[in-house]
Amino acid sequence: MAYLNENYLKLQAGYLFPEIGRRVREFCDANPDAAKRLIQCGVGDVTEPLPRAAVDAIKHAAEELGHRETFRGYAPGQGYEFLRSTIAQHDYRSRNIDIAEDEIFVSDGSKCDCGYILDILGEHNKVAIADPVYPVYVDTNVMAGHTGAVRKDGSYEGIVYLPGKAENNFVPDPPKEHIDLIYLCFPNNPTGAVATREQLARWVQYARKHDALILFDAAYEAYIAEPEIPRSIFEIESAREFAVELRSFSKTGGFTGVRCGFTVMSKAVMARTEDGRKLPLHPLWRRRWSTKANSVSYPVQRGAEALYTPEGREQVRALIAHYMSNARILRDACCKAGMQVFGGTNAPYIWVRTPGGLTSWQIFDRMLNELSVVVTPGSGFGAQGEGYFRISAFNSRENAEEAARRLASFR
Amino acid sequence: MAYLNENYLKLQAGYLFPEIGRRVREFCDANPDAAKRLIQCGVGDVTEPLPRAAVDAIKHAAEELGHRETFRGYAPGQGYEFLRSTIAQHDYRSRNIDIAEDEIFVSDGSKCDCGYILDILGEHNKVAIADPVYPVYVDTNVMAGHTGAVRKDGSYEGIVYLPGKAENNFVPDPPKEHIDLIYLCFPNNPTGAVATREQLARWVQYARKHDALILFDAAYEAYIAEPEIPRSIFEIESAREFAVELRSFSKTGGFTGVRCGFTVMSKAVMARTEDGRKLPLHPLWRRRWSTKANSVSYPVQRGAEALYTPEGREQVRALIAHYMSNARILRDACCKAGMQVFGGTNAPYIWVRTPGGLTSWQIFDRMLNELSVVVTPGSGFGAQGEGYFRISAFNSRENAEEAARRLASFR
Repeated sequence: MAYLNENYLKLQAGYLFPEIGRRVREFCDANPDAAKRLIQCGVGDVTEPLPRAAVDAIKHAAEELGHRETFRGYAPGQGYEFLRSTIAQHDYRSRNIDIAEDEIFVSDGSKCDCGYILDILGEHNKVAIADPVYPVYVDTNVMAGHTGAVRKDGSYEGIVYLPGKAENNFVPDPPKEHIDLIYLCFPNNPTGAVATREQLARWVQYARKHDALILFDAAYEAYIAEPEIPRSIFEIESAREFAVELRSFSKTGGFTGVRCGFTVMSKAVMARTEDGRKLPLHPLWRRRWSTKANSVSYPVQRGAEALYTPEGREQVRALIAHYMSNARILRDACCKAGMQVFGGTNAPYIWVRTPGGLTSWQIFDRMLNELSVVVTPGSGFGAQGEGYFRISAFNSRENAEEAARRLASFR
Repeated sequence: MAYLNENYLKLQAGYLFPEIGRRVREFCDANPDAAKRLIQCGVGDVTEPLPRAAVDAIKHAAEELGHRETFRGYAPGQGYEFLRSTIAQHDYRSRNIDIAEDEIFVSDGSKCDCGYILDILGEHNKVAIADPVYPVYVDTNVMAGHTGAVRKDGSYEGIVYLPGKAENNFVPDPPKEHIDLIYLCFPNNPTGAVATREQLARWVQYARKHDALILFDAAYEAYIAEPEIPRSIFEIESAREFAVELRSFSKTGGFTGVRCGFTVMSKAVMARTEDGRKLPLHPLWRRRWSTKANSVSYPVQRGAEALYTPEGREQVRALIAHYMSNARILRDACCKAGMQVFGGTNAPYIWVRTPGGLTSWQIFDRMLNELSVVVTPGSGFGAQGEGYFRISAFNSRENAEEAARRLASFR
């Protein structure tokens, strides 16, 4: 009989969002009337229509596939040049960041990339992960066998957790010890915290000193409103030697169901063999893509490209302005209710301290039962998230305003 | 410095198809006139327009995403129910095969699934792979560290190769020794061979006796013309306990650039832990999808669904008839040239013995240089493929006819 990957058995009962879904379904089945009033502020999923530029581009590309003259089969493994050069130009070179087309790898989303990247990394890396953070970094490391058993608080042996607390504005400093592989996410999911240029520079300095690799998840960079906050880790000098950046169209173009993102893997990023040779990671990453995948759907790549046209950019700006207005409304409501609030100014997430010493799942259950509002329990993002909950600003204005009314009344 | 996955360093110079691409580019740069006459019969990539039903469904779905009332964000992790139930009904239940909707997992292609499946399997499986075969099975096992070093003939230590030869019609029998994990692909890529009901039953019998797991790649099942040849391994009794089946829309609906396939993981398939517990693989596979991905693009899933409508099925039938007529034309041409020919009757691939004792890459180079025809060297599919080459029938009629004229004259 085939052996299974026993590391999966170390995983907690369910990935966070399916578990939330399960509790919400149970509540709705038991309370059909309340279910009608239910407002989802849980999963960070977009609600507004896809930008018209993307819709039209997807349709146009689908029509192209319907004609012999314009039909296309397998895409180039790294993604089409038309999309990679657009990304390199608009997201990097126009901001004086030196990134080449062949350092962009188009993917079916940055969640997927979080897992794929471990394919090309070794077994003996000392891994550090900010806490709280997007649970996929930890779970994919558990699946890959990079951790020990789970502890009572949901953390795993073998991972170095970098605590984000109110005292450090949820931006952890580099640790004293040696780390090989560091996951950072700014603007942060779930806390909404952003890292200043100085803070990121300290991380790059640490990476240089320790020859560490930083996986920088910039999925929410478009939500940064303050101009002095870096939107890419590559704004920090020499970061291209030490960092891999993940980006997504999910929260910019509303692509959560369309699926497209990309990784920036510079040719300067090195990793080591057990016997001490230093080799670039870029050829391994390219090989991973050519052997294990056939790139991303052509109409989807055309849709992503369209987000960079003048109309597309304007439509993305409007989407982000919409969600950030929601964030303001929801943030104000929590303040009114006397809760301690973080985030929500450079990120679509509001991070709230639970009132009255409730646990994260207790406030989740109370808000579900008393307000018919679904939030995300902070403890789902790591042990340091206990005592917090996350409110997502991804909603219609109407829902955000109604959720705000209910939240403001919460006692 | 982060450790890299050294298993990647064991891989041969390039994945087969990029290597072919490199040689073709070199030839075209050096021979611009001959380049104009070049006919690709190498990579098995479709050439004909996407079925109209799929084009319209993708466009319709994209338009839905452009409106708030019909917008959709994240898809269910296993894929939309509308697609999974359509697949379960049309591909299985209508043929009296007991497969439930929740045993279907929609993916971005069966090449991807070949790699993903290793995520949930352990490190100590004894792996058997037919030879010659689609190189992704071997390469993903190399990447996962399931093999030793490469040998001179391109095979890897630690893998049990099951030779497909003219003498066994390229359908290997089960081995005497114990195997945990077996890769089978019928209709076979590259040989075009199909397995009879009796042959598949022997494999399922073997799997029962050895508690082995069969990964059955049925990507080309739609090309089977003979009604008595099984199109799914689940046509064999009790196979649902021992087999996982991979399917693809790439070669049925021409989806190589649209990206969609699926895996059938029955709830009866078990695997073991090192300490001997037997557990179902289905929950691990579901967990893999919920943690590491966000399903497949919504318009793409609608496109795949449309292939099952009456119009879609008719359009797929016409596509397959087109490619199979090409196969006949190309097959006849090789026979005329006095070559020994296999496949091409229940599969879109023709498998040809090289004339005059040429090696696979020698005939590749000669056909490129003398005929401006790109074929695939058989040795790229495994050591047993040496002395053969593959001709793909995926082409326009015009190209197939012209390639046939040139092949018929080859001496």
